[in-house]
Amino acid sequence: MKIAIYGYGNLGRGVECAVRQNSDAELVGVFTRRAPETVKTRTGVPVYAASSAADFKDKVDVLIICGGSATDLPTMTPALAENFNVLDSFDTHAKIPEHFANVDAAAKKSGHIALISAGWDPGLFSLNRLYASAMLPQGADYTFWGRGVSQGHSDAIRRVPGVVDARQYTVPIEAALDAVRSGSCPELTTRQKHLRECYVVAEEGADKAAIENAIKTMPNYFADYDTTVTFISKEELEKNHSGLPHGGFVIRTGKTGLNGEHTHTIEYKLTLDSNPEFTSNALVAFARAIDRMHKRGATGCKTVFDVAPADLSVMSPEELRAHML
Amino acid sequence: MKIAIYGYGNLGRGVECAVRQNSDAELVGVFTRRAPETVKTRTGVPVYAASSAADFKDKVDVLIICGGSATDLPTMTPALAENFNVLDSFDTHAKIPEHFANVDAAAKKSGHIALISAGWDPGLFSLNRLYASAMLPQGADYTFWGRGVSQGHSDAIRRVPGVVDARQYTVPIEAALDAVRSGSCPELTTRQKHLRECYVVAEEGADKAAIENAIKTMPNYFADYDTTVTFISKEELEKNHSGLPHGGFVIRTGKTGLNGEHTHTIEYKLTLDSNPEFTSNALVAFARAIDRMHKRGATGCKTVFDVAPADLSVMSPEELRAHML
Repeated sequence: MKIAIYGYGNLGRGVECAVRQNSDAELVGVFTRRAPETVKTRTGVPVYAASSAADFKDKVDVLIICGGSATDLPTMTPALAENFNVLDSFDTHAKIPEHFANVDAAAKKSGHIALISAGWDPGLFSLNRLYASAMLPQGADYTFWGRGVSQGHSDAIRRVPGVVDARQYTVPIEAALDAVRSGSCPELTTRQKHLRECYVVAEEGADKAAIENAIKTMPNYFADYDTTVTFISKEELEKNHSGLPHGGFVIRTGKTGLNGEHTHTIEYKLTLDSNPEFTSNALVAFARAIDRMHKRGATGCKTVFDVAPADLSVMSPEELRAHML
Repeated sequence: MKIAIYGYGNLGRGVECAVRQNSDAELVGVFTRRAPETVKTRTGVPVYAASSAADFKDKVDVLIICGGSATDLPTMTPALAENFNVLDSFDTHAKIPEHFANVDAAAKKSGHIALISAGWDPGLFSLNRLYASAMLPQGADYTFWGRGVSQGHSDAIRRVPGVVDARQYTVPIEAALDAVRSGSCPELTTRQKHLRECYVVAEEGADKAAIENAIKTMPNYFADYDTTVTFISKEELEKNHSGLPHGGFVIRTGKTGLNGEHTHTIEYKLTLDSNPEFTSNALVAFARAIDRMHKRGATGCKTVFDVAPADLSVMSPEELRAHML
C-alpha cells in the first residue's frame, strides 16, 4: 500500500519511521503547509506542498493526516476525503460524533473510506473498553493515564506569566488502581485518580510563589487535582524531561454467575517511551485495514470499532489462525 | 437473539447465566446427550434431547456448543452447522486450521455462519497478540498463563496410581514476567516461564514418594517444569481448591524510531475467578456478533479475528462512538 503523510510534526515524523517497519507499506511523500524546501525529512522521503496534494490522488492508497485536533483535523479530514482515503488521530472525545458525521458525508460523496480517531486513546484504549464491556456486561470500567507527558497541560503552564518552559506529567494514583482492581467498583473523584506533576523553568527573578499559585488554581487543567510544582533549570528540563513518554491503564471488573458470585478483572496497560511514535505505528496498522476495506468496496467514515482485527495484520488469515489464534 | 446451548457441563451452565446479563439475548433451551429428565438447569430453562436439536433449527439464532475440544467439537461443530449458526470454544491450538476447514465447508454448504475458538485463549489473548503485533511489528510477544487451575493437568495427576483427587495450578514466574516487561526480548525456556503447583489427595497408605516422583517425571505435563507436590486431605481440597480460577498475561514489547531508540510495552492481563463462566460470557458476546454478521449475509467459518468489535456490543454504533471511543 502506498502511504502519504499530511503534516510533518512529531506525529508525521513518527509515521515516516513506522512505515519502514511494515513490509507491505511504501511512503510516497510528505505534504507540508510550510515551504517544502525548508523541510528535511528523517529518511529522505520527498516533501511536497500541501496545496499540491490533489495532484497525487491516484498515487496514494491512504493519506495519513498528522494535524492537531483543535483546529486542523475538523476541516482537513473532510476536505482531504474528497480526493483520498484518509486516516486521522482526532482525539477530542466530546466532538467525535460531529467529526464523524462531517467526514462520513465527505467520504461517502467521493467514494472514499476514512477512519478517524486512531491511536491509543482514542484507539487501543477504546477497543479495550469495548471488548471488556462486551465480555463483562455487569461491571464498570476505568481509564487511567500516565505516567506521561500531557502536551496540553504543559502548554497551559507555558502561558503563565514568568514561565519560560514546562513539562507536565499525569500520574495515576496507585491506591485508586488497587481499589479498581479489587472489583469493588469504587466511585472515584478526579482528584483520587490522577496527580499532576509540573516541572517549570521560571524567568530570572520571577515570582515563583505566584507562578505556583497560578498553576495550582488553574480551572479545568489543575484546580481539581493534587498538583506539585517543581522549579528546575532549563538545562535540567532538557536533560531529564525532553522525551514524550505516556501510557496508562484500562481496567474493567465485572461479575458472573447465578448471583454475581464470581469477580473478574481485565487490565490493559500501555507503557510508551514515545507517545507520538506509538500513535504513528497504530496509524499505519489502521491504514492497512482501511486500504483493504476500500478495495473490498467499503466507503464512508469508520472507527477502530469497525475494523476486523485480521485486517490490521500483514499476516494472511491462514497464518493468523495457525500462529496467533 | 435466540440462543440455545448444546452440552450442559461447566461451560453450558456458565452460558445459561451469561445470557441473562445481555438484554438482547434469550435462552431457548439446553440440549443434552443425557436423558433430559435427569438434567435440572440452574435457571429452569427447558432441557431437550440432543437428538431432537434439528427440530429447533428455525427457533434458534445461534447454537453455542459447549463440548470438549478433544473428542466432541471436531465432529459436533461441523455436524451442527448443517442446521444452525454455531459457535464453539475449540482450544486445541495445533488443530485449529483443520477444525476451521471442516467447519467452514459445512457452514458454507448450509448457508450458516460459524465461529470457532472463542473464549480467552484462544480468544481475547489471541486478539491481543494480533493487535499488539500489528502495532509493534518490530518486537516479540509472550503469553503467560495463571495463576490458575489447569483441568488437563489435574486430570493427569488423577490417573497416577494411589491418587484420589488432585488440583494443579499453573503459575507464571515473576522473574520471567519482569524480564519480558523490560523490553529485552529474552529467550525463555518452558521451565523459566511457569511453575506447576500440585495439591494431591492420596489413598490411605499410598506411597507418597512414588506418587510425587510419578507426577514430577511425567512427560509433556510436568517433566519440563519445576513442579511442587503438596499432599492434603480431601476436606482441605474441597475447602480451599474447589474453584476454577485462571487468567494470565499477553505482553508484547517493541521498538520504534529511526533506529529503534524507543521501547514500548503492551500488557494485557486477565484475573478470572471462574474460567468457565468468563469463557461463557465471551461466547455470548461472539454469538451476538455472528448473529449480526449472518443477518448481513455472511456465511462460513469465522474466528475472533474476523469480527469487527462493534458487533460484539449491545450498544449502537452511535452510542459506541459517543461513549466508548
